[in-house]
Amino acid sequence: MNRESRPPRIVVAPDSFKGSLGAVEVCAAVEAGVRRAYPDADVTSVPMADGGEGTLDCFLSVLGGQELVLTAQDPLGRPVRARYALSAHGDAAVVELASASGLPLLADSGLDALRADTAGTGELIADAVGHGAREILVCIGGSASTDGGTGLLRALGVRFLDSAGKELPPGGGALARLAAIDDSGLSKEVRETRFRVACDVTNPFVGPRGAAEVFGPQKGATPEQVAALDAALTRLADVLAEHTGVRVHDLPGAGAAGGTCGGLVALLGAEPARGADLVADTVGLPAALDGADLVITGEGRVDGQSAGGKAVSVVAALSRERGVPAVALAGSVAGPFDELHALGLTAAFSLADGARTLDELTGSADRLLADLAEQVVRLRLA
Amino acid sequence: MNRESRPPRIVVAPDSFKGSLGAVEVCAAVEAGVRRAYPDADVTSVPMADGGEGTLDCFLSVLGGQELVLTAQDPLGRPVRARYALSAHGDAAVVELASASGLPLLADSGLDALRADTAGTGELIADAVGHGAREILVCIGGSASTDGGTGLLRALGVRFLDSAGKELPPGGGALARLAAIDDSGLSKEVRETRFRVACDVTNPFVGPRGAAEVFGPQKGATPEQVAALDAALTRLADVLAEHTGVRVHDLPGAGAAGGTCGGLVALLGAEPARGADLVADTVGLPAALDGADLVITGEGRVDGQSAGGKAVSVVAALSRERGVPAVALAGSVAGPFDELHALGLTAAFSLADGARTLDELTGSADRLLADLAEQVVRLRLA
Repeated sequence: MNRESRPPRIVVAPDSFKGSLGAVEVCAAVEAGVRRAYPDADVTSVPMADGGEGTLDCFLSVLGGQELVLTAQDPLGRPVRARYALSAHGDAAVVELASASGLPLLADSGLDALRADTAGTGELIADAVGHGAREILVCIGGSASTDGGTGLLRALGVRFLDSAGKELPPGGGALARLAAIDDSGLSKEVRETRFRVACDVTNPFVGPRGAAEVFGPQKGATPEQVAALDAALTRLADVLAEHTGVRVHDLPGAGAAGGTCGGLVALLGAEPARGADLVADTVGLPAALDGADLVITGEGRVDGQSAGGKAVSVVAALSRERGVPAVALAGSVAGPFDELHALGLTAAFSLADGARTLDELTGSADRLLADLAEQVVRLRLA
Repeated sequence: MNRESRPPRIVVAPDSFKGSLGAVEVCAAVEAGVRRAYPDADVTSVPMADGGEGTLDCFLSVLGGQELVLTAQDPLGRPVRARYALSAHGDAAVVELASASGLPLLADSGLDALRADTAGTGELIADAVGHGAREILVCIGGSASTDGGTGLLRALGVRFLDSAGKELPPGGGALARLAAIDDSGLSKEVRETRFRVACDVTNPFVGPRGAAEVFGPQKGATPEQVAALDAALTRLADVLAEHTGVRVHDLPGAGAAGGTCGGLVALLGAEPARGADLVADTVGLPAALDGADLVITGEGRVDGQSAGGKAVSVVAALSRERGVPAVALAGSVAGPFDELHALGLTAAFSLADGARTLDELTGSADRLLADLAEQVVRLRLA
C-alpha cells in the first residue's frame, strides 16, 4: 500500500447496534474516532441495514429523499399511520412491511391469524407507485398475517375470487375457498415496476417448513389454524401456479412474512434476495469500497455461528472481493473466529473496555465505539 | 515493510495480569492466538515485570537459573522462608525485598514501625554474593520497615554505632542515637558487586514527602512515631553524608521501602532506576525488539492516567525508538487514549468480548487473550 502521498480512505458501513445506536449514529461515532487518528482521513459513511428494522432510515440517510406518512390499514383493517421512503428523484421507494402490517400493531387487540392481512403494505406501495416509483424494495419480516401477500396484492388491484366469482374476505383463512385470481386490475404502472423483496429466511411457501407451520404459532395460530392456513396457502399456490405458471410451493424464501414473498414473486415478478445484499446494492456500497484502505463495519452482536447473510458479512464479502481489509466492531463478539474470518472479516473487536454490564456498554456505546475505531485505524494504518 | 519473503517477527512482552494470569501465561495465550493467524510466525516471548510482584518469576522464566529458598529474618527478626533468583551462571541475582521483609509478613503479629527492619533481605543478598553473584537487582517496595536499609546493610557487615561505640538495636527508631558507621566489615565481594535498585517512587529520604511521612502510617506508625522516624532517618542521612560524602536527604527515590534505597545508594553505590526499565534491560528486551514487525504487550489494567513507568510504557517506549508498532492488550483499558499513544503505544484493546463480570473476564482471560491477539496480528499484518 502506498499511502504516504494521500490521506487514508476509510469506508464506515455498519448495521445499527440494536437497543443502542442507529446505523447513522454508529457511523458518526466511528468517524469521530477515525478523525482523532487521521484528521484529514477521507471517510465515506454508508449506514447499512439487513432489510429489517432500520432499513428505511438507512435508505433515507444515504440516498436522501423523503419519508412519507399516510393512513393505511393495519393487519385487521383498522387505520394506522404508516411510513415509507421515497427517493429524492421519486423513482425508487423502500417499504417496510412491519410499518403497516407488523405483528406489534396487534399488541392491543390480540392476534387473529386467520383474518390478519397485508393490505396496508399494499396501500403504501400503491402510494409509492403513484408518486412515480418504479423500483420498490419491499422489506418483509415481522408480519402479523399468513395471507400469502393477498392483502397487499388486493390493494394493488388483484381480486381473489371464490367459485361463485365473489371476492373473498381478507386474511389467509379465507383462501381455502379460493377458485380464481383476476389480476386485470393491476395498473400498467405497477406492472412496469421492479419489485425486490428483502427476506432473510429460506422457508418455502407451504409444508412442514412453510409459512403457516413455522411462523403461524407466533402469530397466534392454534394447531388447527396452522393446518387450515397451510391448506389455504396450498390452495393459493395451486391457483397461482395455474394462473401464472409460477410454482412457489417449494420456493426457498417464498414463505417469508406469511407467504407475502411467494405472492409477490408469482404475481408481480418480484425478485427475492437477502436483505443485506439488497441494501448494499441500493445504497451503493460496492462503488464506495473501490480504492478504500480499510472498511469498518459492525453491529450490536457479531457471532461466528450466525453472522452469515447479515449486513456485516455482506460488507465483509464485498470488501474481500476488492482486496480491502474489513474490521467489525460490535457490542459483543462471539466465535468461532475462523467462521468470522471465513466471511471475509480481517478482524472483529468488542467495544467493551473491561468488565461492564450491558447497560454500561449500551449507555456509553458512542464513546466506546469512537475509542475503538481510533485504535483500529491506528493499528492498521500507523 | 517487506514481509512477503518471511514469516512475521512478533515480540510478546507483557506484564502479568494481576489476579488472573502470570506474565508467562499471558505470553503463552498471546502466542497461541498469534499462531492461529500465522502458524509459522517467529514469536519471541519476553515476560515482563515492573520490579514488583512477579519480577522474580519473570527473571527465572527468561534467563533460566534457579530459585533459592533459605531461612532468613522477617521484619521482626523471626525466621521466615524466603527466596531469590540466581542466574544459570551464578553471576547475577534478583532479590525481592518483599520476600523476607514485606509488610504482609506481619499480618499475624501486628506492625511495629520503630522496630521493623530489612535484615532478612540482606541475608538473601549475602547468600547470592556467596554463590558468586556480582550483579544484583534488588526489587524494593512493600516493606514493613523504615530503617533506611540499615538492617540489610548490617547483614552484609556494616555496623551502626551509638556515641559509646556500641551497636544500635534493629529498626528505624534506634537510628535517632546513631553516631557513627563502620563499614569495614563489608567484604571485598560485596564491594565488587553492582547493585541496582528497582523502585517506582520518587520520594526523598526525609521531609514532608520522605519515607517516614508518606509511608510510615501504612506501616503502623502513629503521628509521634512518624516524626521520630523522620528525625531518625535525618540523623542516618547526616551520618551517611559525613561518612561517604553522599547526601541522600533529598535524593528522588531514596525514600523507597522505608529509605532502603537511600541506604544502598550511599553505602553500596547502588543505582536506583524504575523497575520496568531494569527488568527490560535484565531480560534483554531491547535486543529482542530489533527487527520485529509488531510488539504485543499488556497488563491487567492499562490506564492513560497511570501507565507511565509501568512495564507497558517501557515496552512502548523501547518499541517506538526502534520504529516497531506496539499494541497493549489488557483486561481493562482506560483513557485518555492520547496519553497512551504518547507513551509510544500504537493502540490498546481490552480482552472483554462483550458485557462481562470481572470474574468472567479473569476466568476466561487466556482464551480471550488468544482471540484478541489473533485479531490484532491479522489487522496489523494481513
